[in-house]
Amino acid sequence: MGSIHLPSHEARLACRQNRLTNTAGVAPGYLQANLLILPAQHAADFHDLCLRNPVSCPLVGKTTTPGDAHAVQPAGCIQFPDFDIRTDFPQYRIYQNGEYLESRRDLLDVWTSGHVAFLIGCSFSFEDALTTAGLQPRHQQTGTIVAMYRSNIPLLPAGIFTGGHCIVSMRPYRPEQIDRVREVTRTYLSTHGEPVAWGWEGAKQLGITEINNPDFGEPQVFEEGEVPVFWACGVTPQMAVEAAGDRIKGLVFAHEPGHMLVTDWTSNDLDKLRPGII
Amino acid sequence: MGSIHLPSHEARLACRQNRLTNTAGVAPGYLQANLLILPAQHAADFHDLCLRNPVSCPLVGKTTTPGDAHAVQPAGCIQFPDFDIRTDFPQYRIYQNGEYLESRRDLLDVWTSGHVAFLIGCSFSFEDALTTAGLQPRHQQTGTIVAMYRSNIPLLPAGIFTGGHCIVSMRPYRPEQIDRVREVTRTYLSTHGEPVAWGWEGAKQLGITEINNPDFGEPQVFEEGEVPVFWACGVTPQMAVEAAGDRIKGLVFAHEPGHMLVTDWTSNDLDKLRPGII
Repeated sequence: MGSIHLPSHEARLACRQNRLTNTAGVAPGYLQANLLILPAQHAADFHDLCLRNPVSCPLVGKTTTPGDAHAVQPAGCIQFPDFDIRTDFPQYRIYQNGEYLESRRDLLDVWTSGHVAFLIGCSFSFEDALTTAGLQPRHQQTGTIVAMYRSNIPLLPAGIFTGGHCIVSMRPYRPEQIDRVREVTRTYLSTHGEPVAWGWEGAKQLGITEINNPDFGEPQVFEEGEVPVFWACGVTPQMAVEAAGDRIKGLVFAHEPGHMLVTDWTSNDLDKLRPGII
Repeated sequence: MGSIHLPSHEARLACRQNRLTNTAGVAPGYLQANLLILPAQHAADFHDLCLRNPVSCPLVGKTTTPGDAHAVQPAGCIQFPDFDIRTDFPQYRIYQNGEYLESRRDLLDVWTSGHVAFLIGCSFSFEDALTTAGLQPRHQQTGTIVAMYRSNIPLLPAGIFTGGHCIVSMRPYRPEQIDRVREVTRTYLSTHGEPVAWGWEGAKQLGITEINNPDFGEPQVFEEGEVPVFWACGVTPQMAVEAAGDRIKGLVFAHEPGHMLVTDWTSNDLDKLRPGII
């Protein structure tokens, strides 16, 4: 990028310098991404997992060489030069043997020459389009972190990644808004696309009984008559890691839910970012 | 193809002339395909459904122009010239308002200028590789139609296609064979890839309680110590059609389960047939 100051670049710099946390609503129009970093020996299995579960794990980028924290090959071969995967998310989580160990502001001390990073599309990417359509997500209005829940949608297995279920994010809407909400988010295939379930019946089908007690993020306020609308969520890879447990040799890193990478891609790049074209 | 007589071409001709039914084991090494044909106005939604559910609905081809029964654009742009989608499956099913109406040997009388056809990868495609690895599927040994079941794996919605669950096919294996079975079928991403569940515990997780009472195809013989191994199945689109019900305007056509299209593609074409590249 050099001296060109894109809003996305400014945001990424702020994350790099730990001046930002929750990235919802930051740099409107720019796509955001989830992260999973794992030892190279497991990269092929995780790649397959993404291709087999593209709604929860839409692969939009991958580092080309183990240990290189800068070279990210995006899906569809879009250029993406200015990037350090170890610092450019506001916060990270570290997993060992499938268990959450601790959170960190960067990965500079733990990143190794054997690590491969995957970028996964993020539903924050379509929130600007929802806002433009008069459907601004509640957590943007309230400045909270979107509510996320463990669902009963199974992750389809790939190699060592067997077991685990999809995480879903939730935004409240009125029933008569849902058709439009589905329509607006439908084209965002590489950032989870349209909802996977909606309404109180939908919550029940996903096995979610306590809407005010999310597993990640913060509870959301429901206004009169509103119902929950659920999208697949890029925290899902962390559930795959939990389920794989000690089949994973070495440390795994991920982003802290809600604390995303702000990329330089925009909604104009969506066609080139189709999952599975890496 | 002209005067070049590929085994796949011979098989397709036999299907066209209604001299073949169950295509399992026919033309070893050639990939086989499932079918869904629907009115053009629903094509975009069905295309999205495939991209969002690539394990059960791996899209490997699509007709380029409504009403043209010959021009199939395969995923990855492999040539596929010799083809009539109305006759080249051994048997077809007709659906109206999401309900099964009747089966036919061809679609010549019902195909219209408004129909668009989708080809979906078929697990028969990797059976030759299993056989080569000493793991010949039981239904090939017994000359029966593979057993297929309704599972509780939800289809992730796309447009009018909401609701519905995945169909799975089943082959019995000994527990110690499963790692190898998974490995052999893993690379066949565009023809359902590796199993989605296995063992009696896996059957339970899929909600399958009566293994001797499949929903499609024929029951399979279990030898001493064998357990079921389940793959996603390309009959799944028919479940999406059932769930969509009268939201679908016009007749829908599909293949009869087990009665597939034998294509001219081989396992060497798998990389070019990656789901979602149409």
